[in-house]
Amino acid sequence: MTGRLAVIGIGPGNPNQWTAEASQEIAAAGALFGYQSYLARVPESAHQTRHASDNRVELSRAEDALKLAASGQHVAMISGGDPGVFAMAAAVCEALENGPPEWRALDLVFVPGVTAMLAVAARIGAPLGHDFCALSLSDNLKPWALIERRLRAAAGAGLVIALYNPVSRARPWQLSAAFRLLATHLPAQTLVIFGRAAGRPDEQITVTTLAAAETISADMATCVIIGSAETRKIDRPGQSPLVYSPRSAAKLASDGRSPEDSQ
Amino acid sequence: MTGRLAVIGIGPGNPNQWTAEASQEIAAAGALFGYQSYLARVPESAHQTRHASDNRVELSRAEDALKLAASGQHVAMISGGDPGVFAMAAAVCEALENGPPEWRALDLVFVPGVTAMLAVAARIGAPLGHDFCALSLSDNLKPWALIERRLRAAAGAGLVIALYNPVSRARPWQLSAAFRLLATHLPAQTLVIFGRAAGRPDEQITVTTLAAAETISADMATCVIIGSAETRKIDRPGQSPLVYSPRSAAKLASDGRSPEDSQ
Repeated sequence: MTGRLAVIGIGPGNPNQWTAEASQEIAAAGALFGYQSYLARVPESAHQTRHASDNRVELSRAEDALKLAASGQHVAMISGGDPGVFAMAAAVCEALENGPPEWRALDLVFVPGVTAMLAVAARIGAPLGHDFCALSLSDNLKPWALIERRLRAAAGAGLVIALYNPVSRARPWQLSAAFRLLATHLPAQTLVIFGRAAGRPDEQITVTTLAAAETISADMATCVIIGSAETRKIDRPGQSPLVYSPRSAAKLASDGRSPEDSQ
Repeated sequence: MTGRLAVIGIGPGNPNQWTAEASQEIAAAGALFGYQSYLARVPESAHQTRHASDNRVELSRAEDALKLAASGQHVAMISGGDPGVFAMAAAVCEALENGPPEWRALDLVFVPGVTAMLAVAARIGAPLGHDFCALSLSDNLKPWALIERRLRAAAGAGLVIALYNPVSRARPWQLSAAFRLLATHLPAQTLVIFGRAAGRPDEQITVTTLAAAETISADMATCVIIGSAETRKIDRPGQSPLVYSPRSAAKLASDGRSPEDSQ
């Protein structure tokens, strides 16, 4: 079998943030798959077929790409950000595991990219400068109670939290609920960053506090970064502020022993 | 003031994983700073001065770069991986916050890159395909008890864990201690990936289990990814296995309520 599937991260949207490897893999492919908004960022080429799909069909998109690769074609799956972070790499693995055995013989590569939280962080300083976690706020594929548990665990342990998929039309209340839950674990003045379309012409970066976070709007193109109690803001005259999480941590900012400590 | 400081991520080592933006920022700089091993990856250029330093002097390296930028020069700080993840961006912010006020007027940009965990994950499938955290295992700048607490919280909440700085000559026992602690929270068969020098000629990717992880050697160039109880391996005849964390999570795999749940 000579087919190849490359699952490629093209970063959050600025073509200048593609890696050389991503550009080469895209140029070498004969067929491109992807969510239509990501595929639209790749210039059209006469030698490539394009298979755009909606954003709710990840598994069938993965199966279609694997099928075409198994027929001998050189296929590229275009993923926003990094394909391995809340994107297409896991869907391709899942489809491959449950698909026909010959798919396991395919030449399959994953091309990493700049995931949204890194692009947003770079526009504001270094909010992910110390221990952090990345959580999807979508309860389409996991129960909301599990999301709450992870938010509590992360805030209780002093991790900075990057939230992916914070809001969609079908999930309007989850982000507010997350802020309210976190407010019971973190100081009201904890810094929160809303980063939308980082690096694109319509980029919008907003710095606020946990107490005021509910007043800021977000959508599926937004990555929300919630600082730890140690995350700091540096004001700069005539320039946007910097936000960073110090490399050192002397202690947890919570007022006493956590439940885990008593184990 | 016309000086500029660009803090640039060049990924884990493969020049093909630089972004276009990183290449352009490096080419435009008159002076390059960085840890000597990272700086050595940037081709020499006659119009650039080079200021290599040891890996333990992050803050003074940041101060030196800010000073030179404040004198009007165009300076680039070369960071491995992404500058915002356990790298130079936080040190630059810290130096700037504590430095002379004129540093706040500098043109300061951060250029994101492919951080080690993303490059390692891409070589093996999608182990970071669902909620995860990134923790530095170095207790140089935080107490070991805090690291233990974060490991417990992450494992207890079902997060995949990416460990940076797992081992150094001065910190020989911490990685084994982390595996032993995690073994009290996670099944013995939990998948563990050791990714060293991802994308470089001396790359080494090893998949093992938590029970056997102590027998694998690691160093400062290794990123260790510890799966959740849901992380899966797909064997492929004649090819290396794939490891991925499914996009869906039905429940936590732990046997009952966690301490956090009782709050």
